[in-house]
Amino acid sequence: MDNILSFEKFSSRHNGPSEKDVQEMLKIIGVNTLDELINETVPADIRLDKSLELEEPMSEFQFLKKLNAIAEKNRIFKSYIGMGYYDTILPSVIRKNVFENPGWYTQYTPYQAEISQGRLEALLNYQTMIIDLTGLPIANASLLDEATAAAEAMHLCYAQRKGDKAKSNTIFVSDECFPQTVDVIKTRAVPHGINVQVGNYKTLELTNDLFAVVVQYPALNGDVYDYTEFFENASKLKINTIICADLLSLALLKTPAEMGADIAVGSTQRFGIPMGFGGPHAAYFATKEDFKRNLPGRIIGVSIDAQNNKAYRMALQTREQHIRREKATSNICTSQVLLAIMAGMYAVYHGPDGIQKIATRINALTHILFESFKSLGYKVMNNNYFDTVTVEIENEKVDDVRKLAEGLGVNFRYIGNRLSVSLDETSSLEDLALILAIFDLNKQLKLNEINFDLYIPENLTRKSAYLTHPVFNKYHCELDMMRYIKSLENKDLSLTGSMIPLGSCTMKLNAATEIYAIGYPGFSGIHPFAPADQTEGYKEMIDSFNKDICEITGFKGVSIQPNSGAQGEYTGLMVIRQYHISSGENQRDIALIPCSAHGTNPASAVMAGMKVVVVDCDPYGNIDTEDLKRKAEQYKDTLSALMVTYPSTHGVFEENIIEICNFVHKCGGLVYMDGANMNAQVGLTSPAKIGADVCHLNLHKTFAIPHGGGGPGVGPIAVAEHLVKFLPGHSVVNIGNEDSISAVSAAPFGSVSVLPISFAYIKMMGAEGLTNATKIAILNANYVKDRLKDYFKALYTGSKGRVAHELIFDVREFKNTAHIDVIDIAKRLMDYGFHAPTVSFPVAGTLMFEPTESESKFELDRFCEAMISIRKEIEAIEKGEMSETDNPLKNAPHTSKVVTASEWNHPYTREQAAFPVEGLKNNKFWPSVSRINDAYGDRNLVCSCGSVEDYRV
Amino acid sequence: MDNILSFEKFSSRHNGPSEKDVQEMLKIIGVNTLDELINETVPADIRLDKSLELEEPMSEFQFLKKLNAIAEKNRIFKSYIGMGYYDTILPSVIRKNVFENPGWYTQYTPYQAEISQGRLEALLNYQTMIIDLTGLPIANASLLDEATAAAEAMHLCYAQRKGDKAKSNTIFVSDECFPQTVDVIKTRAVPHGINVQVGNYKTLELTNDLFAVVVQYPALNGDVYDYTEFFENASKLKINTIICADLLSLALLKTPAEMGADIAVGSTQRFGIPMGFGGPHAAYFATKEDFKRNLPGRIIGVSIDAQNNKAYRMALQTREQHIRREKATSNICTSQVLLAIMAGMYAVYHGPDGIQKIATRINALTHILFESFKSLGYKVMNNNYFDTVTVEIENEKVDDVRKLAEGLGVNFRYIGNRLSVSLDETSSLEDLALILAIFDLNKQLKLNEINFDLYIPENLTRKSAYLTHPVFNKYHCELDMMRYIKSLENKDLSLTGSMIPLGSCTMKLNAATEIYAIGYPGFSGIHPFAPADQTEGYKEMIDSFNKDICEITGFKGVSIQPNSGAQGEYTGLMVIRQYHISSGENQRDIALIPCSAHGTNPASAVMAGMKVVVVDCDPYGNIDTEDLKRKAEQYKDTLSALMVTYPSTHGVFEENIIEICNFVHKCGGLVYMDGANMNAQVGLTSPAKIGADVCHLNLHKTFAIPHGGGGPGVGPIAVAEHLVKFLPGHSVVNIGNEDSISAVSAAPFGSVSVLPISFAYIKMMGAEGLTNATKIAILNANYVKDRLKDYFKALYTGSKGRVAHELIFDVREFKNTAHIDVIDIAKRLMDYGFHAPTVSFPVAGTLMFEPTESESKFELDRFCEAMISIRKEIEAIEKGEMSETDNPLKNAPHTSKVVTASEWNHPYTREQAAFPVEGLKNNKFWPSVSRINDAYGDRNLVCSCGSVEDYRV
Repeated sequence: MDNILSFEKFSSRHNGPSEKDVQEMLKIIGVNTLDELINETVPADIRLDKSLELEEPMSEFQFLKKLNAIAEKNRIFKSYIGMGYYDTILPSVIRKNVFENPGWYTQYTPYQAEISQGRLEALLNYQTMIIDLTGLPIANASLLDEATAAAEAMHLCYAQRKGDKAKSNTIFVSDECFPQTVDVIKTRAVPHGINVQVGNYKTLELTNDLFAVVVQYPALNGDVYDYTEFFENASKLKINTIICADLLSLALLKTPAEMGADIAVGSTQRFGIPMGFGGPHAAYFATKEDFKRNLPGRIIGVSIDAQNNKAYRMALQTREQHIRREKATSNICTSQVLLAIMAGMYAVYHGPDGIQKIATRINALTHILFESFKSLGYKVMNNNYFDTVTVEIENEKVDDVRKLAEGLGVNFRYIGNRLSVSLDETSSLEDLALILAIFDLNKQLKLNEINFDLYIPENLTRKSAYLTHPVFNKYHCELDMMRYIKSLENKDLSLTGSMIPLGSCTMKLNAATEIYAIGYPGFSGIHPFAPADQTEGYKEMIDSFNKDICEITGFKGVSIQPNSGAQGEYTGLMVIRQYHISSGENQRDIALIPCSAHGTNPASAVMAGMKVVVVDCDPYGNIDTEDLKRKAEQYKDTLSALMVTYPSTHGVFEENIIEICNFVHKCGGLVYMDGANMNAQVGLTSPAKIGADVCHLNLHKTFAIPHGGGGPGVGPIAVAEHLVKFLPGHSVVNIGNEDSISAVSAAPFGSVSVLPISFAYIKMMGAEGLTNATKIAILNANYVKDRLKDYFKALYTGSKGRVAHELIFDVREFKNTAHIDVIDIAKRLMDYGFHAPTVSFPVAGTLMFEPTESESKFELDRFCEAMISIRKEIEAIEKGEMSETDNPLKNAPHTSKVVTASEWNHPYTREQAAFPVEGLKNNKFWPSVSRINDAYGDRNLVCSCGSVEDYRV
Repeated sequence: MDNILSFEKFSSRHNGPSEKDVQEMLKIIGVNTLDELINETVPADIRLDKSLELEEPMSEFQFLKKLNAIAEKNRIFKSYIGMGYYDTILPSVIRKNVFENPGWYTQYTPYQAEISQGRLEALLNYQTMIIDLTGLPIANASLLDEATAAAEAMHLCYAQRKGDKAKSNTIFVSDECFPQTVDVIKTRAVPHGINVQVGNYKTLELTNDLFAVVVQYPALNGDVYDYTEFFENASKLKINTIICADLLSLALLKTPAEMGADIAVGSTQRFGIPMGFGGPHAAYFATKEDFKRNLPGRIIGVSIDAQNNKAYRMALQTREQHIRREKATSNICTSQVLLAIMAGMYAVYHGPDGIQKIATRINALTHILFESFKSLGYKVMNNNYFDTVTVEIENEKVDDVRKLAEGLGVNFRYIGNRLSVSLDETSSLEDLALILAIFDLNKQLKLNEINFDLYIPENLTRKSAYLTHPVFNKYHCELDMMRYIKSLENKDLSLTGSMIPLGSCTMKLNAATEIYAIGYPGFSGIHPFAPADQTEGYKEMIDSFNKDICEITGFKGVSIQPNSGAQGEYTGLMVIRQYHISSGENQRDIALIPCSAHGTNPASAVMAGMKVVVVDCDPYGNIDTEDLKRKAEQYKDTLSALMVTYPSTHGVFEENIIEICNFVHKCGGLVYMDGANMNAQVGLTSPAKIGADVCHLNLHKTFAIPHGGGGPGVGPIAVAEHLVKFLPGHSVVNIGNEDSISAVSAAPFGSVSVLPISFAYIKMMGAEGLTNATKIAILNANYVKDRLKDYFKALYTGSKGRVAHELIFDVREFKNTAHIDVIDIAKRLMDYGFHAPTVSFPVAGTLMFEPTESESKFELDRFCEAMISIRKEIEAIEKGEMSETDNPLKNAPHTSKVVTASEWNHPYTREQAAFPVEGLKNNKFWPSVSRINDAYGDRNLVCSCGSVEDYRV
């Protein structure tokens, strides 16, 4: 009866295979039940002995009602708090066609550039916007937030110290920088022994011990300073100059480049991205030519394809932390792609005139506010302004003003007896009238008494042009803009087209209901520093989410502050570091890391001030336990942590994981578990069960937040009881305690505005649904392994011949038998409409495949069909029936232009090129460029939109 | 200053050309200012002498805030009112990827089938669902609502009377049909002199004067009757049997076909479509083979393309009213495509098992309710039930119950001392507990006392299978479903790809903000018969909208009840008819209609009981004034109305329109203005100004509601003062007065849930924006005319050589010079990525082009480039350089399969076939089938999904 009367289960929609499919798949695998497969896959000693204790799962319908009730507990005030977060207007055409469109948000990072040209163009627009507005020649495709971007700038400068500066060890940070920025810089400086000197830049004595200075523009209280002379003096001493600049203000103000800054960083949040209680938003990073090969994060560059046509791709990837590993100077991996694209689109839609109007409008309103305060007799603290006015009021009036303001739904920034008001794109004259009424109810705003001549001093007024490229001057009516967005979307492969079976990336379903969850207005319009009584809905959700994460991981505390997986790693290691320090064991700084680890592991360890010692793997892909024990023993006095991914990046549940963890503990180290493969654990085992002390979770993997084409990521950490008190605090919002490490992100709860997605996922799946998803993920991987076993070899399996939720196809032999590289297979899959599995990670020359639980047997079979067909193409080369140099793999991907060209000189047919399997005839995705020449682009780095000539039709 | 401080104007996004573009375009046209062009185009004597008086325009940001406040004035109750409207759950994957996706909602009616295969497949699914659930072999692709579908069924039967039934004149309608259905049947019967006999079907004496009977299944109070015997008896007397059946109930109940019904109609609303205060929803219409060529509305059928591949298209179009004109037996034109697609997708996603579970769940909950009422001692009125229970309560308790219920947010249906409760997909045990608590607070719901064995009597239990086709059994996880939806979307050309320049169809921008407006929860969850105090937001919006429409048309009253343009025509004519009757001039039944009129004009006139007299046009495309005067004079004693489209369907502002209207008035007739071309009037002239008495407005044309691929349409009428009192009333909701004609639609305010779109459009454009849009629409048409003047001839122009907002390209000469038909050009445009202009209307062999104001110069130039390129292709044939039979036009459209085939035997290149202009190389839309063979499909009518064999890969 319960069955008849219950609502439909979400898990039946999230998991791909139907019950009937599961039975058929088990037959192929050769087991009788799903549990039999799981028993053969997951070691008995790590299995949980009881089910997860979570709330009863809600249906999608029930959940949305529930979430709406939670969202309504947040109260949306007009927030004039500023400090890097401002209300803004996301144009509906961008909101609908990018932000809410699975064609944009379900894409993966554009490693496979030929099927990512749309996003890459959008990111190039973004970079061009940054370059134009800052005046600096190089920009990356975004970082996580302004504070971490400033910290990255510090690290770049620190790593670049040379000659007589090589020993310089101090960074100066203006006391008029945003406090959260100062805090994160400190966090990031400490493990490296960098001194952070905070003070007044005007009175600073520049010394040789300084390697960099950081200032805010406009400054915290609203003043706009001309840093030209300050930067000039610093440069003379080879001190690098870093400016945290409000991007919108640069439409009106002298640029960072014109002031001589070496690096400019900041947030692009106010380019249409909702405040969302703190994030995600894209931070920008721009710098001079000298630093172009040292830039953290991803850079999009222009190159050419095999037909010599222009093509975009990620440039200079050898800089990336997953390649540089322990030599990395940054652990940054994820960028905020979706948000960067939206900010770039905002510039495309508004164009230079529109951006200037928005900035001018804010500045004009601020002018009125400034003059009005003065005319009301208030003491205005700043001399000039872009968008912020700070006034001093009598001490005893502060509470009254605050009470009155909050009663009227208005938030200011309060600092002692001062008070700041930062205006934004949504501000209107009516808003101003309300603000002024709060200060003096009896006086009217007298616009006619205000002089509108000049708001920004001549020396600070921008004269240079920006956003002159056609892309910013072409799509200004909504139809053109929608079509431009759509034309880019159509060039990109996303989950809307086919599976993206990237090993270790867990490209599972991002359910529409989960995405609706982030759209509730109660979540988007909240300032991260809003008073707690306005954010009770958020608190309820975060608390409930953290509780569930504790149940799932077996841990006792959670911080959702880290903005990405790599940030989670860093935070977890910093917590471990603090634990050792608090135990008086400051010397513990060795991180043991297996050679199979994600590249961010060693990079994060280095950023956390640790030394990396690599542990070998055995021929079966497992950690070499003897080598591990030997090294743990060897470093037992200085051992800080083991970093371990579980199940391993080789796709195997290692059987002696508990033994390994115990041994590390015995040697005084803690165990950090990388949560990349958590999708294979949920409900079956847990980080606590295997003996870890900390883990991070990629919410954008296991917990259904979409990848957004390369961000946002969300990387909370969960910790065992002895580490709870060290979880990060925050300098503005009181979330920590005396033992907390300082903040790792600008916002207290990181990218919390996308948390409803993971919250929805857990609440709708419930304990049984989540556990079943793990089982199905393992089933799907084993099914594909066994369906393809006669064609491709799985490199590693467990002791019973099973793989976990992912596996490595070893295709290295084809190099010898047919001159086929792994990349040829990857590119050829594009012709079949598929995104390649992970290429050459963790083993060079292989493909790591992860189907996730969300793919149906129907889709898995389509993939297998493609792989088998490709194997037969390779076989034809092996047999000499097909040329080794001119074949469908070497020439892949095939564009429609190539296949429809009159000239066709290949020894295979056009049909074989484009329609090698029948199903493609009904549903064909065409790669938009031929194979891209990476080396050419790296030799000729171009990271902004080309000249007008490029855009002639 | 106002300039600096004001928000961005929406009109600058809605209108395509920038100010700079306008100047360049004026130069091509050869005038100095936009007003100069308008003065040369629009006759001086019809120009408005002052600006429209509308509210100041709101920005998109301001509007959404305002609308949210309005939506919040509606109060969402749990509505158990039933009567054809039920709460339902729209699966998020369908909501996001169909309903909210411009790739689905901006398409046009699929006349150009080769670029509409996605929608056509979706509609075939819908038809298959109807066929399966009703058991009847033929279904159309939807009608406007259940009540009008029942009326259409009546007309079909009426038109089919033969032999000894030819004079039969009475239709019996069960008094247990929904009252709104009875009402609309009456409205539609009256002008034809059909008697409507309402009564108890069980006691009905079947006589020879009956030509049809109509019953409800389940009946109004919830009873499920077996009509088998009743239908059998009727059939013996050649009386047609019409059943209004709840589609969801058919998952459990004996089918209409099994009971012997000739026609089944009903709503598909509860297949995921929000109640939305009444609509839009798709009504279904299914019938037996005998009637297949008499079906009203559109039918999707299967045919083959030029490569003999399966292809879909609209079948049997010769039945359509725009072809049959005054011989039509229905004026139905628009169907509810978007809603039908969503309902069909709901069945695809749930499949037979899911649909059955939903129906069973509702039925099981109803069973509990039924038994609980009984056990609480209430008198339950029905004997059995699907979802509705009717109880009798003491007279004096009715008010108490109602007060208590409404206090708890619950609506029942109240009928004297009876009360009905209809459950739905969203109902839960908690809901039941609340309902029962309202009746008796002290008693608990005792589930264990209830017998769950059998809820539906054996003789009424469905035994036949349904939804057995693979499409209903394949896409049950969300990823597969999303990809299926996306794969269909990718086959269709929509406004997201390029302009759809259909003359007379006004495919303008449907702004994202306007679409967001309909998503506010305060609009979607409301039952159309909810008490007025729950719908104050709707009332505020409707009143404000009607006021604006009065200002725009110059009229005094508005009814938004009609669900489509053709329904608007019908309603306007019915109002005119009533005016004459009330003036004692019952004999006035002649409608003068120019030969250039839309086909629905004569069809609507016939449906309103009028006789059509056609008026000639002169060689310049204008109404032949002499012929008109002659005929008006001739029929002056019986003249009811002139129907006139203005500006004319020939794309010209006729200069003597005022004279014409005056003459008709002099002859005792009224003037009905067809609002199809209202886009060329707004702010410049008005229906009242030209002398009309009534007009309808296509909100889905001029007022920005998207076409949805062929519906929903919304066709309100506006009337002059003397007609206001005749505007339609409603049988359930008190909106009329004693003079009102009875209802023309099931819901009192028609498709009101999409009204926020038009409301948004007017509020955001404001008087200046709307007027400017009209001017730009005229500018755009004249620009294209003049840019193409050396290549294509505009058939008609005004006295100064200008066209209105649209023009006819005369391509008939190419038939002689190159054997090229208009259809060849239309199909060839697909290869260029464009939807053809209107083909062969109003003049056979021509193309009618309407760009609307929303297209930019950029897009217009792209279109001109394509047209010029096509003209050159024709020239090559004319010169003998290209074959007359084997050329890119005759073979168009070219699919990717054709162009990439190894075999290519055409005298032109593959590049010329697929990439005739350079821009296509960056952005190519591929038609998914070759040219479709219509005749084949009509000879072999298949209107449901094929056999399993068709779907083998």
